[in-house]
Amino acid sequence: MADRRGARLAALVDAFTNDVDGMLVSSLPNIRYLTGFSGSNALLFLSRGERHLITDFRYDTQVRSEIGDLAAIRIERVSLWDGLWAILPTVQGLNVLGFEEAHVSHRDFQRLLESGSRWQWRPQPHLVEDLRESKDADEVLLIRQAADVAVRALARTVPDIRAGLTELQVAGILEHALRDEGSEGFPFPTIVASGPRAALPHARTSSRVLQAGDLVLLDFGAEYQGYCSDITRTFVIGAASAEQREAYDVVREANAAARSGIRTGMTGQDADALARRYIERHGYGEAFGHGLGHGIGLEVHEAPRLARTATGRLPVGAVVTIEPGIYRPEWGGIRIEDDVHLSADGPELLTDYPRELIEVP
Amino acid sequence: MADRRGARLAALVDAFTNDVDGMLVSSLPNIRYLTGFSGSNALLFLSRGERHLITDFRYDTQVRSEIGDLAAIRIERVSLWDGLWAILPTVQGLNVLGFEEAHVSHRDFQRLLESGSRWQWRPQPHLVEDLRESKDADEVLLIRQAADVAVRALARTVPDIRAGLTELQVAGILEHALRDEGSEGFPFPTIVASGPRAALPHARTSSRVLQAGDLVLLDFGAEYQGYCSDITRTFVIGAASAEQREAYDVVREANAAARSGIRTGMTGQDADALARRYIERHGYGEAFGHGLGHGIGLEVHEAPRLARTATGRLPVGAVVTIEPGIYRPEWGGIRIEDDVHLSADGPELLTDYPRELIEVP
Repeated sequence: MADRRGARLAALVDAFTNDVDGMLVSSLPNIRYLTGFSGSNALLFLSRGERHLITDFRYDTQVRSEIGDLAAIRIERVSLWDGLWAILPTVQGLNVLGFEEAHVSHRDFQRLLESGSRWQWRPQPHLVEDLRESKDADEVLLIRQAADVAVRALARTVPDIRAGLTELQVAGILEHALRDEGSEGFPFPTIVASGPRAALPHARTSSRVLQAGDLVLLDFGAEYQGYCSDITRTFVIGAASAEQREAYDVVREANAAARSGIRTGMTGQDADALARRYIERHGYGEAFGHGLGHGIGLEVHEAPRLARTATGRLPVGAVVTIEPGIYRPEWGGIRIEDDVHLSADGPELLTDYPRELIEVP
Repeated sequence: MADRRGARLAALVDAFTNDVDGMLVSSLPNIRYLTGFSGSNALLFLSRGERHLITDFRYDTQVRSEIGDLAAIRIERVSLWDGLWAILPTVQGLNVLGFEEAHVSHRDFQRLLESGSRWQWRPQPHLVEDLRESKDADEVLLIRQAADVAVRALARTVPDIRAGLTELQVAGILEHALRDEGSEGFPFPTIVASGPRAALPHARTSSRVLQAGDLVLLDFGAEYQGYCSDITRTFVIGAASAEQREAYDVVREANAAARSGIRTGMTGQDADALARRYIERHGYGEAFGHGLGHGIGLEVHEAPRLARTATGRLPVGAVVTIEPGIYRPEWGGIRIEDDVHLSADGPELLTDYPRELIEVP
């Protein structure tokens, strides 16, 4: 693979140098995107001429192997901020410095004003997030691999789902399969929601026992080299009722309409409408209470958004979820979620798992 | 169980009312501690006379069942901040308002200044965290249950650990057992670190294959009704070498010395020294590169700290980890971690799993 980190760093410096002389990056996913460092504690300082990554002693070996000579490395024993205050005075030409306004707490902002009073500090919006919105070919490949892991794990799990298991036990089977297939972690807490609990769009997996007639919704992801996938399928325990089948078919067709109709250049709300219009036409509009989807990458929720209020246009290279659903209190819920890469040539499906209604014994 | 939420809310109001007229709580674990609400999106506003919890439509049903009439509930469709700006003007006697300085980003602080310009905003330190440091009997019981889940899962996993499995596969077996035993989630990413990777105190679980002669370190936790446990055990694949056994015995004795010697009223550094002195006396001082432990509760890392630089005193009711270790680059690492409740009558062990060196086939 081409090493794109240098180009990413250069793009960020180009983005901020009209406004500030240097910039502090404190979001860990942003630091990973720019440098490849995957540790849990770091600060990155960039200016036109210099790059400094500060981390703690636990990552002494790891940081050197992950970032090589992409940036000067400084290891701190007590506080990363000590490192920053040691480095900044050595850098020439710094007057106004930027920081990530969404990733610096008020307490840390006070630190900048107090210990860093010789510089002027200026909040910066989502500069790195903007770069991350369009994935390059390497990133799409990693998300595809994360999607493949999730799909293989689901295929191994479905034969084991049955009445009498708890939601937690089903999660255990699924997560075991995810690990066996190589998932490095769980991008978000696995959701297994059955019966009336499936009506909660953000249900937590519980000790409820699966029963005949239940809708069972599995929403989970895999992680591969830091990149996430996110997929949902819904099953029925036993034979589906006519009502379940009707609602399921509406969700499936809405998912298909959005997957085939989505294009770069569209707004997030136009993409959302591809599925929503279909669901509304079939009389379930009120039951689809969330947006159609969100970007995925190093984080499981990132730009762009697909929702009624999302006016931004979808860039070439975005990877998004498409996840229409129908939820009714007491009755349950159905959601079918896929991951799609928005290439210049049209949408490319990453989560290749069947969408036919599966009735498990 | 007694419902202690009302008392917690009253204690917080007592803590802030000398300084401010009302306070915005935005940390989700703090909101859960004060109200019982476990959703992923909320703001809590408190004054001497009023309590308002704001969340979004996804949690409409859940919030009512979790908090009852403990606070007025407001459901928002777009942004929780809209709810705050609707509520505050209706509350009498508000001039100066507090916010959690560690849990409000600079961007949200700007929101307070702009949309909330008719009030004066004053940063508050870790007021809720201070209350959370001493656990009540109900909380200790929940942490004990989370510890029991972890111990039972480990007992089920150990017979299956063997050469030829990858670290990820071992994590899959362990996490499956955690779910079967009832764990609601994973408080932090499970660490399975083998061979040279065990030398990294914050290793990520990888696809490395376990080999004869490896030290294998398992560091993981369970979650029960929101409360966390955190335990580490280290094994050898095959027969332990004399060198492995010697280092292991030093860690085990250091763990025992700290578990029996720790007392409330001690500083965190004195507690740290209970284990560190033993390790230093045996010539491994340089190889124990992190602090002895940390508080656990609703979060897996909370106050108090046990470390060389921790000057705070340990309060009655704290629950802390005791996790001495010895790490050597290339050779590997050993850590033995337990959870201990600091009762007025002395330390009480919560993680009752053997510490003898186990050699797995």
